[in-house]
Amino acid sequence: MINPQGLMIVLSGPSGVGKGTVRKAIFDHPDTEFEYSISMTTRNMREGEVDGVDYFFKSKKEFEQLIADDKFIEYAQYVDNYYGTPVDYCIETINDGRDIFLEIEVEGAKQVREKFPNALFIFLAPPTLGHLEDRLIGRGTESDDIIKNRIETAKKELEMMSLYDYVVINDEVDAARQTIQSIVTAEHHNRKRIEQQLRKHLLEVD
Amino acid sequence: MINPQGLMIVLSGPSGVGKGTVRKAIFDHPDTEFEYSISMTTRNMREGEVDGVDYFFKSKKEFEQLIADDKFIEYAQYVDNYYGTPVDYCIETINDGRDIFLEIEVEGAKQVREKFPNALFIFLAPPTLGHLEDRLIGRGTESDDIIKNRIETAKKELEMMSLYDYVVINDEVDAARQTIQSIVTAEHHNRKRIEQQLRKHLLEVD
Repeated sequence: MINPQGLMIVLSGPSGVGKGTVRKAIFDHPDTEFEYSISMTTRNMREGEVDGVDYFFKSKKEFEQLIADDKFIEYAQYVDNYYGTPVDYCIETINDGRDIFLEIEVEGAKQVREKFPNALFIFLAPPTLGHLEDRLIGRGTESDDIIKNRIETAKKELEMMSLYDYVVINDEVDAARQTIQSIVTAEHHNRKRIEQQLRKHLLEVD
Repeated sequence: MINPQGLMIVLSGPSGVGKGTVRKAIFDHPDTEFEYSISMTTRNMREGEVDGVDYFFKSKKEFEQLIADDKFIEYAQYVDNYYGTPVDYCIETINDGRDIFLEIEVEGAKQVREKFPNALFIFLAPPTLGHLEDRLIGRGTESDDIIKNRIETAKKELEMMSLYDYVVINDEVDAARQTIQSIVTAEHHNRKRIEQQLRKHLLEVD
C-alpha cells in the first residue's frame, strides 16, 4: 500500500452555492469510494432532510456540551446556528486508510486548515454572485434580509478562496462532481504526499 | 474563459517505464483534448514507429543544426542519441488556450522545468525496478550491457522524482491514462493557476 493514511477532503464555499447538492451527487455516484463525515447542526431541518443522513440535528444545549467536551474538528456559529464536524469518525477513517469527505462552511474550513494542513481543500464557487442570489431566492426558505446578509457574507467568503487548493465552479452539478472526483484521484498521486513511501517501495527489486 | 493559456503537460520517467505506451493510450482515447508535441530524435526507428507520428526522425547533423538555431524547448543526449522538443508548436498551442502534452526523457524534463516552472510535471514510475528490467528485456531491442546501463540510469532517474508534481505508477496502462487525465482536470482547477482571473469573473454580478 502506497498511501496508508486516507485523505481528509474538505468541500466548502459560500452559503447557498450548492455544497449539499454536489455532496449528494458525489455520494449517489457508484464510483465514490470515500466516506462522508456527517455534520452536526442546531439549525432547523429543511423539507426532505433526514436526521443522521443530511446532518445530526441537535439542540443548542447539546451542541454546547459537545464543544465543551472537545468533540469537534471544527465548529462555527453561522446565521444564529451552530454547525460542526464530530472528530472521532474522521480520525478513525483516515487512520484506516480511507478518505473522509467533509462538506462544511468556510469558517469551519479555516479551523480544519489550522489543525490539518495536509487536508485537501476544495472551494465550490458560484458561476457569479448573481447566480448565488438567484439560488438563495429560489430556495424560498430565507427572508430578503437574510438573503442580503448572505450575499454580503458570500463576498467576504470569496476572499477566503486563497486558503484553498482547488476551486470548482458549480455551474452544473454533475460536472462539479466529476471534477471533484478527478481532484481526489490527482491528490492520491501528489508527489509531496507519496514520495517517501514510494521511493522505498520502488527500490525493492522483487 | 477562465484560463486562456493552455497547460504544458510534461510526462517523463525512467527509460523503459512505458511512457510511449501510456502516451499512445492517452491520444487514442476520445476524451483527450490536449495536443501532442511530437519529439525529434536521432535514434533508429523501431518496428511499428512512423516518422512524424511517433517522432520526427532526424540525422545527427540535422539535429545539431536545429540546436544551433535554438529551435528546442529541451534536448538531451541519451544512450548516444539526441531527443528534443521543437519549440514553435508548443508555444503556439498554449498561447491559443489549448494544452500541450510532452512525453520526454528526465534530463529534458529538467530543462523544461527551468524554462517553464508553471508546466505540469508528471513522473511515470515502474511498479518496481524489477518490473523495469523485465520490460527492457521483453522489448528485445537492447543488448544486456545496454539493459544493465539503463537500470543504473533508472535508479538515478528515480531520484529525480522530487522535481515532479505528480507520480503515476505504470502498473496498468489504462489506469495510468485515466489518472493522468484526472491530474490534468484537477490542475485546471488548481487555485494558484486560476485565482486571479476567477476572482475578477466571480465579482461580476450579471
